[in-house]
Amino acid sequence: MTFSFELNKTDGKARTGLVRTARGDIETPVFMPVGTLGTVKSLTPEELVNAGAKIILSNTYHLYLRPGHELVAELGGLHKFMNWKGPILTDSGGFQVFSLSKLRKIEDEGVRFRSHLDGSMHLLTPEYAIEIQEALGSDIMMVLDECTPHPATREYTKNSMELTHRWAERSQKMERGGPGALFGIVQGGMYPDLREESARAIVDIGFDGYAIGGLSVGEEKLEMMDMLEAAIAILPKERPRYMMGVGAPEDLVEAVSRGVDMFDCVMPTRNARNGTLFTKYGKLGIKGSRFRNDPGPVSKECDCYTCKNFSRAYLRHLYVSKEILASRLNTIHNLHYYLGLMGDMRNAINEGSFDSFKRGFYSALDEGLNNI
Amino acid sequence: MTFSFELNKTDGKARTGLVRTARGDIETPVFMPVGTLGTVKSLTPEELVNAGAKIILSNTYHLYLRPGHELVAELGGLHKFMNWKGPILTDSGGFQVFSLSKLRKIEDEGVRFRSHLDGSMHLLTPEYAIEIQEALGSDIMMVLDECTPHPATREYTKNSMELTHRWAERSQKMERGGPGALFGIVQGGMYPDLREESARAIVDIGFDGYAIGGLSVGEEKLEMMDMLEAAIAILPKERPRYMMGVGAPEDLVEAVSRGVDMFDCVMPTRNARNGTLFTKYGKLGIKGSRFRNDPGPVSKECDCYTCKNFSRAYLRHLYVSKEILASRLNTIHNLHYYLGLMGDMRNAINEGSFDSFKRGFYSALDEGLNNI
Repeated sequence: MTFSFELNKTDGKARTGLVRTARGDIETPVFMPVGTLGTVKSLTPEELVNAGAKIILSNTYHLYLRPGHELVAELGGLHKFMNWKGPILTDSGGFQVFSLSKLRKIEDEGVRFRSHLDGSMHLLTPEYAIEIQEALGSDIMMVLDECTPHPATREYTKNSMELTHRWAERSQKMERGGPGALFGIVQGGMYPDLREESARAIVDIGFDGYAIGGLSVGEEKLEMMDMLEAAIAILPKERPRYMMGVGAPEDLVEAVSRGVDMFDCVMPTRNARNGTLFTKYGKLGIKGSRFRNDPGPVSKECDCYTCKNFSRAYLRHLYVSKEILASRLNTIHNLHYYLGLMGDMRNAINEGSFDSFKRGFYSALDEGLNNI
Repeated sequence: MTFSFELNKTDGKARTGLVRTARGDIETPVFMPVGTLGTVKSLTPEELVNAGAKIILSNTYHLYLRPGHELVAELGGLHKFMNWKGPILTDSGGFQVFSLSKLRKIEDEGVRFRSHLDGSMHLLTPEYAIEIQEALGSDIMMVLDECTPHPATREYTKNSMELTHRWAERSQKMERGGPGALFGIVQGGMYPDLREESARAIVDIGFDGYAIGGLSVGEEKLEMMDMLEAAIAILPKERPRYMMGVGAPEDLVEAVSRGVDMFDCVMPTRNARNGTLFTKYGKLGIKGSRFRNDPGPVSKECDCYTCKNFSRAYLRHLYVSKEILASRLNTIHNLHYYLGLMGDMRNAINEGSFDSFKRGFYSALDEGLNNI
């Protein structure tokens, strides 16, 4: 087994650790930039490395439909295809089937769906989801699950959760060919007891790591954290915990303080392309006319390539002119911010000062953008 | 005077030389990538340097309208704004007034036009064109001219040419504040005797360099070369010659063989964004389905970042998926090709082997893409 997780320090419930994979080690807590179609949008692999990325996430649904997992396998796997040498975590494709495809139909066998690209019909089963991820050459694979919609009745949530459990069992039973690790996913909607039940069932099946899915789907932040806590209480300390599709910087801080080790989210990259830049004092919409003649960097305290070389005035000009370079420079900055935030949290945990870090984090946000 | 030109070697009519500017020396013949809006689309300044760019062109019309030359001046000039440390040649804005704006009206005073962005009315005079270029901090400025449309009657062409001459005279008479050089522009449409007359008139006024404008406007290639020859026959050997807005690789080779020193064109960058890649064996449309599973680079003989790191199959995938990285990687390759071609021509001229270079150039094109 090439995959392992070592716990390093704990500070309250927050913890640092090391995920080891065949393609490199990953210090946790870690944020994984999202590279949907075999590219973290607008960046080269070298720029990802420079921003501090150690692992990226790729979307199975997208790559399955285009260019196709078999083609990627024929070309030597996703790492070679996109020239990314670090580890890749792939999702199962399930979430995108539910959010992007049309005419989906959930059956015990799997989920039937119509491609959002060409209307063709497909059946994604738990086994096929793993087969696709293995063809891509994934380092960490996710089981197929149903991301329970929100809001949902208790009955719907329970049935959906039980389907997720049956699929998880089939996924674990499947004979795998590659070295990729396999993570299970806890569901249970907004019902704490179902979250606990789901965590127990998934842990009973046994996986290399445990994800908490179905959060950040429209619920209140406090509700999200309650669900997270209910699941984490059951999860074993010696396995990595991955909160899927989350989130805003404050969500990362809150979740880390509750013991989460891994995150992914399109927020830093998508917001960058929409002209929203993250700083410790809050978000900055670069198209604002007050930046028209602002000669300063996005953040004086940031040492990313963008902040070292370009003014807010220039970034505003690029953004309003719809220049490609706007997406690039903004993405570099936002990923630098996100990955830097994770590094700061790891340092604070290792030094036993996470509480003080968290107070400082919120106090900067409270000071607001007038400060920069 | 910080601007100068030294002739180095000649081989037939082809010649190498050195343009000296306050911001760096430029070996000629040179190709200038086009950075319309303060960015060579999709690239950083460092990537331009890596591709071999020594000087770029920026468009006065675009920057005047957005973000405005006064704002650029307030922020320290175009070089600082876009973080490009090398020389910048700016056009006069005239060509874009004729090609992009609506409701233009040519008067002796200048040209009135309506902005293509917001419909506002503007008057561009020869003097104002220089004022704008000086505000931008241009290293090489161009006089305002009328790019004679094609086809045009002899009478229209002659009148248009004479207006260009009057504007050139006013441009030269204007008191300038900065160290930027000023180039005159030869017009004369498709009439060789008018081309000669225009070259004589512009040389009589006297400029730091001489551009040949109004070519590649829809005429036949042989006609274009005839007009070029007619103008060059009059131009002094000791000043740089700049063929504006040209062109395809074979146009560059033909024009260099006739004694042109400087070029600019959107072809390598625009074609890149449209998925057309240049190689010595011809153009390659990367979206072609035959590249779907092609593991090789765009060109085996190319050592650009794109060819060293990514397959045709990946580039095709990025292009058909409309990924931003497609524009970047394609632009890097095409500029590398164009700037490499110029370097090869300079070497051949310096070695006295330009004829043999030219034969090799055409023979590779004739072999065609089956070869790569």
